[in-house]
Amino acid sequence: MDVRTTRLRDDIEANAEFGAVPVEEGRGRTVLTGTEADRRAREYLTERLRDAGLDVRVDAVGNVVGRWTPASADPDAAPVAAGSHLDSVPEGGIFDGPLGVYAALEAVRAMRDAGVEPARPVEVVSFTEEEGQRFDGGLVGSSVAAGDLAVEEALAIEDDDGVTLETALDGIDARGEGRVDAGDWRAWFELHVEQAERLERAGAPAGVVTTITGLSRCDVEIRGEANHAGSTAMDERCDSLAAASEFVLDVESAANDVVAEESDTAVATVGKLDVRPNAPNVIADAVELTVDVRDVRHASVDRIVDEARDSLARLEAERGVETSLDRPWDREPAPMSERCRDALHEAGAAAGIETLDLHSGAAHDTMHVANVTDAALLFAPSEDGISHNPREWTDWEDCAAATRVLAGAMARLATE
Amino acid sequence: MDVRTTRLRDDIEANAEFGAVPVEEGRGRTVLTGTEADRRAREYLTERLRDAGLDVRVDAVGNVVGRWTPASADPDAAPVAAGSHLDSVPEGGIFDGPLGVYAALEAVRAMRDAGVEPARPVEVVSFTEEEGQRFDGGLVGSSVAAGDLAVEEALAIEDDDGVTLETALDGIDARGEGRVDAGDWRAWFELHVEQAERLERAGAPAGVVTTITGLSRCDVEIRGEANHAGSTAMDERCDSLAAASEFVLDVESAANDVVAEESDTAVATVGKLDVRPNAPNVIADAVELTVDVRDVRHASVDRIVDEARDSLARLEAERGVETSLDRPWDREPAPMSERCRDALHEAGAAAGIETLDLHSGAAHDTMHVANVTDAALLFAPSEDGISHNPREWTDWEDCAAATRVLAGAMARLATE
Repeated sequence: MDVRTTRLRDDIEANAEFGAVPVEEGRGRTVLTGTEADRRAREYLTERLRDAGLDVRVDAVGNVVGRWTPASADPDAAPVAAGSHLDSVPEGGIFDGPLGVYAALEAVRAMRDAGVEPARPVEVVSFTEEEGQRFDGGLVGSSVAAGDLAVEEALAIEDDDGVTLETALDGIDARGEGRVDAGDWRAWFELHVEQAERLERAGAPAGVVTTITGLSRCDVEIRGEANHAGSTAMDERCDSLAAASEFVLDVESAANDVVAEESDTAVATVGKLDVRPNAPNVIADAVELTVDVRDVRHASVDRIVDEARDSLARLEAERGVETSLDRPWDREPAPMSERCRDALHEAGAAAGIETLDLHSGAAHDTMHVANVTDAALLFAPSEDGISHNPREWTDWEDCAAATRVLAGAMARLATE
Repeated sequence: MDVRTTRLRDDIEANAEFGAVPVEEGRGRTVLTGTEADRRAREYLTERLRDAGLDVRVDAVGNVVGRWTPASADPDAAPVAAGSHLDSVPEGGIFDGPLGVYAALEAVRAMRDAGVEPARPVEVVSFTEEEGQRFDGGLVGSSVAAGDLAVEEALAIEDDDGVTLETALDGIDARGEGRVDAGDWRAWFELHVEQAERLERAGAPAGVVTTITGLSRCDVEIRGEANHAGSTAMDERCDSLAAASEFVLDVESAANDVVAEESDTAVATVGKLDVRPNAPNVIADAVELTVDVRDVRHASVDRIVDEARDSLARLEAERGVETSLDRPWDREPAPMSERCRDALHEAGAAAGIETLDLHSGAAHDTMHVANVTDAALLFAPSEDGISHNPREWTDWEDCAAATRVLAGAMARLATE
């Protein structure tokens, strides 16, 4: 099939203009759900789907679906669907999400150009709020599509300013009706950048994910005592930031120990940390931080969270701080469908493109879709493994090669 | 002299309403320079100074001076002055600053009630922007009054939003003309809360400061590499927050070592720390933080700053981060005037109030005033040593006792 690199690239580059941020190196964008950048990205996608002859619908949480029903297809047959998301982290890269959406569209165009005659409709999907940067938790659209989250609950999620997802979507005219139901799909594929270096190191342009990592998010608060930085002697302090610093290092050590001893895919990160009152001459009163723990082995996630709790208990005893740890969400590892994985490997082989088996350390919308239908996740290489960063990069030829694998697998399952 | 506890208390409690913040425990206020709270605090002070028969003037940086020129005084003689500041840290207490301003006013009222006949005028002073919370550096009004900072430079200082001190003062009609010159004063006294527990432990209601600590502020940046928290293996990370955590603990250790080995008054604090991009699922790209280092022994300050630099060099080598350390300001320790200290001890003895010698770990406006005239700093006890916190507290009787010492010393030097 004739996947065209320039057609794919033009779409991804056009999309990169929405929420573009000036950076010294690379190409950054900030596309938070419900912002002007999001509105423009959605409008451009809708236009491109329609240009390709797809029927576009938008569901009640803003999931966008373009449907191709060729003459060869039974319009009532369960569709083969593929896609990803268009939102980003603050100052994120241009491939994380958009590659999967526009590769799915390019796959449809390539199938049609090649005269493929699907027996069932093919859908191109963009899920709402994958990153969870504005509306907590993330994977919102796919959770709703998989029935893991009710529409009403999703719409009621509030951002830090108390604005609901419903209001945010209404503000950019992005809220439709009904619910995209992933359970209606015959199969699901998502192409995404790897966000690690394994494919680059192996020199392979495509990776077939075996399991998506399980993950746990912990919200931690450490409370000390605000006091004057000049007049409070060292031995009279209850410094929540010094305690939090020990905690950050304890979490890092716990993950390193698990990697060394039982599971080399385990990771733990403190990426968000806020100090109160955050003044140079005031000993920190309290620190709030998040711990993000992931592994394909759920017991390893539990071990790291347990060691984080132990660290807090030790800090309470040794530094006199008060602490709390909440674990607001916890997701089991998600193994991918063998049928879909086989289709990807076979498509790779048919196109002469090497496909590697690997795990996904990042959460993806496909985690939820996999709960209700056969699903697979395909990776394209990330230069130096960098993502969530304007220096995120995937060579256009690698984007196209992975899209060829995607298109081949979609064509295989759509013609069955 | 008849220092009246209720009169003093009424003023401090009235002042506490300006910028009052709701808190669970204690009594908090946020009075940043140029805000509505600042405007109201200044208006109330002006009214109270005039009620007591003082002539009020405001200089070009907003320093407020009330002048009492009794019939007994040579109006051209160098005045004895006393005061402090009315601004606060965010969610600070109600005594830090206002006690010194209203105690000076109460001292004037008490002198007049008691028929004291000063040979020279007496001035009550409130300095602008002592805390440096909105306009960086702090001690702004006293720096100008001591000639350490030009009026134009002070007015050009910008807050985080680029608003100048000049604009901020104009916005609340708080900018006058000319410059209060601390060099014109015969002597200067400041009563302030101790912000430590030494007086409370000794059961003494007043402390006479021997030396105000020297201090150094360092601005540190630690740059790692933003990356995905899920897909970046532990051994592939360059995590600026983990590096910053080591640094915070290294600074704490350096201060503890200095305390143990050479100077038990040394302190070092990281009170402000900002993470970029500060997202739960992104490994921290960069951390900016401040280090506040103080001691009465300047060599100890230098040693701690040197050890902080060593820590950064080690982190660069071990973690691959890039770092920078700027030392934007550095103030030598300031010994207090023996003449003024003696006056305070004598006034305490005459009133039957114990006065203790101690150092000040906090910077105060008196640091600058001491560069140009005889100056002294008097402390009142802080309950549990707490300050820069709504739970900051000084018993009203202790406030009054310290004010009696202040009034006695002012009367002694004013009648000379």
